[in-house]
Order: sequence, then C-alpha cells, then structure tokens
Amino acid sequence: MKALEWQGDHLLLLDQTKLPFEEKYREARSYLEVAEAIKNMEVRGAPAIGVSAAYGYVLGALKYEGDKDDFPEYMNEVLTTLQATRPTAVNLTWALHKMEVKLREVQNLDPEDIKEALLAEANSIAEADRRMNRLIGEYGNTIVPEKANILTHCNAGSLATVEYGTALGVIRQAFEAGKKIHVYVDETRPFLQGARLTVWEMLQEGIPHTLITDSTAGYLMQQGKVDMVLVGADRIAANGDTANKIGTYSLAVLANAHQIPFYVAAPSTTVDLKISSGAEIPVEERDGKEVRMFKGVRVVPEEVPVYNPSFDVTPAKYITGIITEKGIISPPYSVNLVKMLVK
Amino acid sequence: MKALEWQGDHLLLLDQTKLPFEEKYREARSYLEVAEAIKNMEVRGAPAIGVSAAYGYVLGALKYEGDKDDFPEYMNEVLTTLQATRPTAVNLTWALHKMEVKLREVQNLDPEDIKEALLAEANSIAEADRRMNRLIGEYGNTIVPEKANILTHCNAGSLATVEYGTALGVIRQAFEAGKKIHVYVDETRPFLQGARLTVWEMLQEGIPHTLITDSTAGYLMQQGKVDMVLVGADRIAANGDTANKIGTYSLAVLANAHQIPFYVAAPSTTVDLKISSGAEIPVEERDGKEVRMFKGVRVVPEEVPVYNPSFDVTPAKYITGIITEKGIISPPYSVNLVKMLVK
Repeated sequence: MKALEWQGDHLLLLDQTKLPFEEKYREARSYLEVAEAIKNMEVRGAPAIGVSAAYGYVLGALKYEGDKDDFPEYMNEVLTTLQATRPTAVNLTWALHKMEVKLREVQNLDPEDIKEALLAEANSIAEADRRMNRLIGEYGNTIVPEKANILTHCNAGSLATVEYGTALGVIRQAFEAGKKIHVYVDETRPFLQGARLTVWEMLQEGIPHTLITDSTAGYLMQQGKVDMVLVGADRIAANGDTANKIGTYSLAVLANAHQIPFYVAAPSTTVDLKISSGAEIPVEERDGKEVRMFKGVRVVPEEVPVYNPSFDVTPAKYITGIITEKGIISPPYSVNLVKMLVK
Repeated sequence: MKALEWQGDHLLLLDQTKLPFEEKYREARSYLEVAEAIKNMEVRGAPAIGVSAAYGYVLGALKYEGDKDDFPEYMNEVLTTLQATRPTAVNLTWALHKMEVKLREVQNLDPEDIKEALLAEANSIAEADRRMNRLIGEYGNTIVPEKANILTHCNAGSLATVEYGTALGVIRQAFEAGKKIHVYVDETRPFLQGARLTVWEMLQEGIPHTLITDSTAGYLMQQGKVDMVLVGADRIAANGDTANKIGTYSLAVLANAHQIPFYVAAPSTTVDLKISSGAEIPVEERDGKEVRMFKGVRVVPEEVPVYNPSFDVTPAKYITGIITEKGIISPPYSVNLVKMLVK
C-alpha cells in the first residue's frame, strides 16, 4: 500500500479522504494540484506531505514554459504555494528547502538537466523516507515487549509516509518479529485518521487491533490495558517538545499519570533545531466544518462556533523516547537531539 | 424545553436521537415502549432515565388487565424489564425502588386507588427532580467566578433531567445572574450528546459556547483557557468515586495536571451508599456500531473490533467538589456524603 508514487510525468496520490471504502487515486499533473491535495488532506502525514511537496516542486519545473530569465522567480512562487498549504509539519519546509538548494546548485545547466536534477532530488527524498522508516521500525522494535498492548493516535503508517510508516512501522516490525501485538486505535476526531486509515492498515496486515473513541484511552490506561503509547510527530523542537495530531498531548499527560511509556516515532527530518521549544511551533487551525459535519452529514447547525486546532504540542518531559532512523533518543533532548543530528 | 412530560395517560418523550435538527416527540403508552426508549437512548441522562422509568412503572400498572392475584408478579416483571435497560445510572434503580415501595404500601387498596397512588409517586419523583435541579444550580452558582470559561462533557442539561439540568443548571444560573460565562462543549463521541444536545441547549438560551472535539480539551487546558470543569454523574459511590460519560476520567486527570477545579453536579439520589468504591459500579458496554458509524454514515467496516464502554469512573481524589441539592460536598467524601444524605 502506497500513499504516493511518481509515474514518469505525474504524481499518483491515493485520495485518503475516500478511505477505507474507496481506493481512489488522483493523478496530480501540476504543482497546484499537489498543493490542493495537501491542503484538502487527500495526502497527509508529515513525511508524505514533505515528499509530495518535493514532487510538486518537480512538476512546477516540468510544466514551465516561460522565459528562462523568469524561471527563478516562478520557482519561488511554486515553493511559496506549496509551503503555504499546511503550517505545522516541518518535513514540508525541509523537503522544499532541499529542492531549493538543489535548484541553486544546478541553475546554470540546460533546462532539461535542471529538471532531471530536481526529479533525482525528489526521488532521493522519497527513497530516504523509505529507508528511514525501515530503520525506525528496527530501532523501535527493540523497545516493544514480547507481548504488548500498544495505543496509537491518528495515522503514522504507510499512508503518512512513502511506505511502511513511523509509529506503525515499529508496530509492523514487532508484529513481523512474532511478538504478540495488539493495537488500540484512537478514532482521532475530527478527521478520523485512526478509524479510517490506521484500522485499514491493520486489517490489511492482519495485525490484531481494537478501535476506540479518543475519550476511551484514559479509561483503558486506568484498567492497566495499555503497555505503551506510540505516536508520530509533525515537528520536534530542539528541546524535544513535539507537535502531533490534536489529542496527543492529552494522551501524554494520561500516560504520565499511569506511568505508561510514551514514545514518539519520527525521522530525524522532523526535528527543527531552529526553534528552541514547542511554544514556537505554529499550530494549524482548520475550518470548523470538519467538526460540524461528518462525510456530508451535518451534526450541528452551521452557526455553532467551533475551535478546531489540528495539532497540539506535547512537552518533552512527557516523552519517554524519540525513535528515529539514527536510534532511540532519550532525555535530555536538548543535548541528545543535536548529538543525533550531527551523527 | 422538556425531555419528558406525563400527559394524563401516556408519557411524552422528546426523541433525543433526532436532535438538534428534528424535535420529534414519542408517545410512550406502555412500559415496554418506555423501556425501549431508554435502551435506545431516545431519553438519556441519569435523572431523566429515573423519572421515565417511574412513569413506565405507572404505565405498567395502568395497562394491567389480568387477575388481581397475578398483579404483584406482573409488576415485578415490569420492574425487572425497566431495570435491565441500562446498568450504570443508579437513579434508575432508585426511582424504581421508590415505586416498588409505594406499591407495597398501597397493594391492598382498590385497583384504581393503587394506580392513582403510583402516578402520584411518579409525579412526586419528577417534581423532586425539578426542585433539586434548581437548588443544584443555586449552590453551584456560588463557586462559579464572575468571568469563567467552563468545560463540560456530554449533556447534563434540561435534556438529561425533567428540566433545567445539573451541570448545565449551574451554568444557567450563573449566566442568568449576569456572570460572563463561556462554555467549551466536548462533542462527546460516540453519541455526540455534547454536539447535538448541549450545544442545542446553549443556542436556545443564548449562552456563549464553543464546540470542540473531545481531544481538544487537554490542549485548551494547557493554554490556560479553562477555568473549571463541570460534569454530571450517573452514579457516585460512598467514597466519592463517580461514574459518568466515557471521557470524564480523562478530563479529571487533565484538570488535575493543570490544577483546574473539577466539579460534579448531581442530585443526592445519584449517590449509592451501598457500594463503597467505584470499582463496584457496573460500566455499560454498548454496541460497537455506535463507533463504527457516525450519524448513520459508516466509518469502518462492520468487522472492525470495537471497545465501546459508555462510562468511566473518576476516582474521588480528582473531584474538587460535588454539587448537590443539599449543598456542595467537599472531601473527604466517605465522611461528607453520608453526612449530607442524613441531612
């Protein structure tokens, strides 16, 4: 199962708003279509957004038909548009920055060579994501007990990455290693990534799981039914504070109150050393209609005021460890994250 | 707005599964119809369930056409059926017990006098509920600041009682007293009592409010946007442990971590001195389809395993105070609840 795949001249995206009942693919043939798909959450998940944006940048270059002199300015517009789609996940910024650097490197080459170089760079970002996820799974597996009830939130799986997944990559690896794994899946309102996407991945792989409402997590912990919490991340500040899907912070506080290990699984590209703490992470607020409606069915009248932040920030003190492709990072994060990144 | 009303020979129930878009009433003309309405959550909320069951008991008696000698056994069947509808709320047990005691008192009277006495008893239970809610509102208002952001979960309003409400009764009273009240309403999955019912009540009274997903509560607290949490209760054990809608426990842990006052508002009839702690409260587990579907729209395939407890139990240590019609009870609850009940 793949969230996205480059197809020679366009990007094929699995439309995740249609899952689990419809496996509909979208062919994005311009950078604007990629931007739209990210904005509408047809493709979502920090790593998948980053890779999609890189290919969106490639599409921008491929479709350019203007004057050579105007190309840099045009590509700047492409970058700005892709960058503006979603503010919280840093992987988007990171991937676009890599593309921009590559463009500067090759800007004096022939147009065809420039395009080729950009495509190679996007492919390399995608390939790195695949590789990192496998390594995250391997490192993560080392801290999963032989028998474990793992609680996860949102979708940090194949669908959130190029393939395999971060938090679900760890779960996959542990399951493939023969461990007795059972996953509690938070449905994850309002977009229901847990119910629609994580459950879909678990069903496909035959990994035992149980779907719960987000409110049930605390009660499960109280009953001793959760051995560890494992989530992804959209941005990790230099001190370890972690932005992830709304509800993650509540889970972290609850895990702490029940002395349950709370792990974040994410590629090192999710770490943003430019910001010192979570207070500086911009938290996207989405349209209230995501809460007022469900799949076209209205829950409350349109005039009902809604507060719909997409993410929250979990302070580093609640995080037992951060599982990356370079190993498992332990506190103090302000020291150990830097150490990891220079490794 | 009334959740239920006796209409001479039948019970009129507002079908709460249809709110907020349809105000549909159901005429329950037999005890079986009342039992069905409780089971399907057309009428819900601990106090409203208790009163409905009392009228269901009356309907049982009114419709009896058998032999006088078989009447006690028949009424026992009526009681058992009504009792079996929902296990957690103790008000149901309490109200039915009152009806049973009344029947024993008057069992030697003429059939017509028996029916009249039972109806009078049910009316008195309903009237007591109205009176208790007003008093809960008055006592509760004394601890609401002049300006307050109050977070509530599920619906502990008019719709959960005969009228006025417990937690929402406090909010009504504070709002009517001119306090600057703003209510954060948890949508309360899976049944969406917050989004569908509490928001509906707030709209009708013009009380400022904002709807959030259940997962957003912790993030609001972290930002200092919640001054107090105020919820209802389905059963309170002798030590103060409180069963309420699933998700209440998580809120209590979060409120505690943020040093936010956490209050329970409930009539004294919600206290069950027969059980010493929350561990003995039976927690209803409902059909997984409530989670698999969202307002009739399927979210996941039918075969997905779901855990759907309707309630959880909040340990007394997390509860700042219990607002009853006899005053606000403070810890230690194991002492002060008994004191209140004998008052």
